[in-house]
Amino acid sequence: MAVTAPGGRRGRMHLPHQTVETPVFMPVGTQGTVKAVAQDVLESLGAQLILGNTYHLYLRPGHEAIRRMGGLHRFMSWPRALLTDSGGFQVFSLNALRKVTADGVQFRSHLDGSTHFFTPEHAIDVQIALGADICMAFDECTEYPAERSRAEESLRNTMAWAGRSLAHFRAHRHNVPWFDPNAGRTQCLFGIVQGGMYRDLRRQCAERLVEMDFDGYAIGGLSVGEPRALTLEMIAEVLPLLPKDKPRYVMGVGYPDEIEQYARMGLDMMDCVLPTRAARHGLLFTSEGRLNIKNRQYAEDQSPPDPACDCPVCRRYSRAYLRHLMQSAEPLSGTLNTIHNLAYYLAIMERVRASLETQPAVTASQRQTPIPSP
Amino acid sequence: MAVTAPGGRRGRMHLPHQTVETPVFMPVGTQGTVKAVAQDVLESLGAQLILGNTYHLYLRPGHEAIRRMGGLHRFMSWPRALLTDSGGFQVFSLNALRKVTADGVQFRSHLDGSTHFFTPEHAIDVQIALGADICMAFDECTEYPAERSRAEESLRNTMAWAGRSLAHFRAHRHNVPWFDPNAGRTQCLFGIVQGGMYRDLRRQCAERLVEMDFDGYAIGGLSVGEPRALTLEMIAEVLPLLPKDKPRYVMGVGYPDEIEQYARMGLDMMDCVLPTRAARHGLLFTSEGRLNIKNRQYAEDQSPPDPACDCPVCRRYSRAYLRHLMQSAEPLSGTLNTIHNLAYYLAIMERVRASLETQPAVTASQRQTPIPSP
Repeated sequence: MAVTAPGGRRGRMHLPHQTVETPVFMPVGTQGTVKAVAQDVLESLGAQLILGNTYHLYLRPGHEAIRRMGGLHRFMSWPRALLTDSGGFQVFSLNALRKVTADGVQFRSHLDGSTHFFTPEHAIDVQIALGADICMAFDECTEYPAERSRAEESLRNTMAWAGRSLAHFRAHRHNVPWFDPNAGRTQCLFGIVQGGMYRDLRRQCAERLVEMDFDGYAIGGLSVGEPRALTLEMIAEVLPLLPKDKPRYVMGVGYPDEIEQYARMGLDMMDCVLPTRAARHGLLFTSEGRLNIKNRQYAEDQSPPDPACDCPVCRRYSRAYLRHLMQSAEPLSGTLNTIHNLAYYLAIMERVRASLETQPAVTASQRQTPIPSP
Repeated sequence: MAVTAPGGRRGRMHLPHQTVETPVFMPVGTQGTVKAVAQDVLESLGAQLILGNTYHLYLRPGHEAIRRMGGLHRFMSWPRALLTDSGGFQVFSLNALRKVTADGVQFRSHLDGSTHFFTPEHAIDVQIALGADICMAFDECTEYPAERSRAEESLRNTMAWAGRSLAHFRAHRHNVPWFDPNAGRTQCLFGIVQGGMYRDLRRQCAERLVEMDFDGYAIGGLSVGEPRALTLEMIAEVLPLLPKDKPRYVMGVGYPDEIEQYARMGLDMMDCVLPTRAARHGLLFTSEGRLNIKNRQYAEDQSPPDPACDCPVCRRYSRAYLRHLMQSAEPLSGTLNTIHNLAYYLAIMERVRASLETQPAVTASQRQTPIPSP
């Protein structure tokens, strides 16, 4: 299968706020901040594109407040590219009391218990108010495991909502806070391929979304508890169906070896909370494997977290110091651990990009994503 | 009284790790980290000299571990000057179960309840192992209010312990982890003037300590609940008794207007947890007064925390964003608030220094603190 051949593709996404070199790893900035790391540090680490979570920002501080302040870029002072998810994943993962109808999802705020209703149109309105460079169609993230009948029913929603998301987006994208009619630059919208762990449902969804003609395509509903072989099988099933000239994004994965593997399969974009969340729990990813900084063996270890890493943390601090910060519950602990893990993830993608540039056969697959016009 | 005249003194302390421009404000780095701020940021803010807490570092990670790793500078990767307190303040403020004898203090760890005993000799050994540029004599911080008999008894300990601290320090200072017999540079030791709120006890203590000939003198036991007029009275009583050619340090104060006031009275060094601790609770110090960033009025306020401040936070982020971070309990909240408050405090001292440089009468009082020889 062509997509599983080693290699991947080297590309460039021309987004309104950043030309993004792909394949790219996108740090997650749930509430308008990549947890514990300041924006200037993210810039110096080479982060090109970061995520905001529509669900969280809708609840707090509220998308209308962010719109009034000029959009999420300006609110959080992030000059490079942003992507907002559809809100679907959080609605499904954080809300035991949600009610799904063909029209949308009713859910309760995890903050104050208040009741909210998201339709595809509403999810798009919220994302236009936030004003990320890339928005995501409203989808239903199918749980794992799911019976076939359940996966089919869920997929019907995802496909119907994709169409409604796209229609609403096309009619309203000019409302983005930073829209400039002269430059003609505005947001773009990606569709999300669901279908649970059923190959034919995945295929059906991908084909339907491609017909709709999104600006890019994501593969969602993976890394939800299934074995990795199954994740790979679903990706391999979907990839050949996606247009070669559009970005391909696998959502919410994964470990360092996974993101390299997916990049080399031809995926262009990946995001995951793992490097940031694991960091706050003391788990560091290194060229020598995973390192639990809380371990007593590091109490007087003066070597850097990863001797092969040249991130600002590895250049300056020792394992012993990072362990002390963690043991002492010092806030600097989360910051330094996160900086290292993000640097490690970003460096993987940089290496993949560099290796693709030296492979002529792959360089030939370079593509340009057209700037979306209003 | 000469010391209360406006002005202050502009000086320079030649310490082994840094030539410190005075008057200086010293950020507090209790557990080997100024809470929530990375060392490179502290450097870029212009911090010259920061504090470590002997009590905390003794308990965790342990002074012997830090000694084996080359001392606190190397452990925490801080190339500039460090000062360690005597441990006395924490022993007295964190330990309800302490037992004081003429020989020292028995106390229980706030971490695990284990029993420890600090003598002046032990407190000095711990500080030599930590290896700060400036050590403090072991003292008893008299509580407020205290009866005269209690203050007298407490002062007897402080004065006896000062002598024992100095004798032990002189005999063992060459054991500092970074001691270089060729350069001849090692730590120096300051005495601490106590005496509660009794002017004659303060005077008695100051005169006694000056006879002992410390490298510098601190005024301790202030800002412990007394009215500010009383703080000022004690400082004004002690200051004229201290030698003009040695650094003068008022411990644990204070608000922005206080540190400027004390600097202009002729004090050279100040430390306080206020800018860092208040920051983590959302209290920002600004040229327009105190600002509680949690306040709803800032929800959509796009102005910087302090329009007159050019710190990295005020240059980049809005009040609305800082409020959102605080409301969302995001770790970046404490980091950004702390950076601003420290920048604000450091800028006050920078302005005082600059103003003293343009006053010829005051410039004449410039002094050089000799590098302590082993």
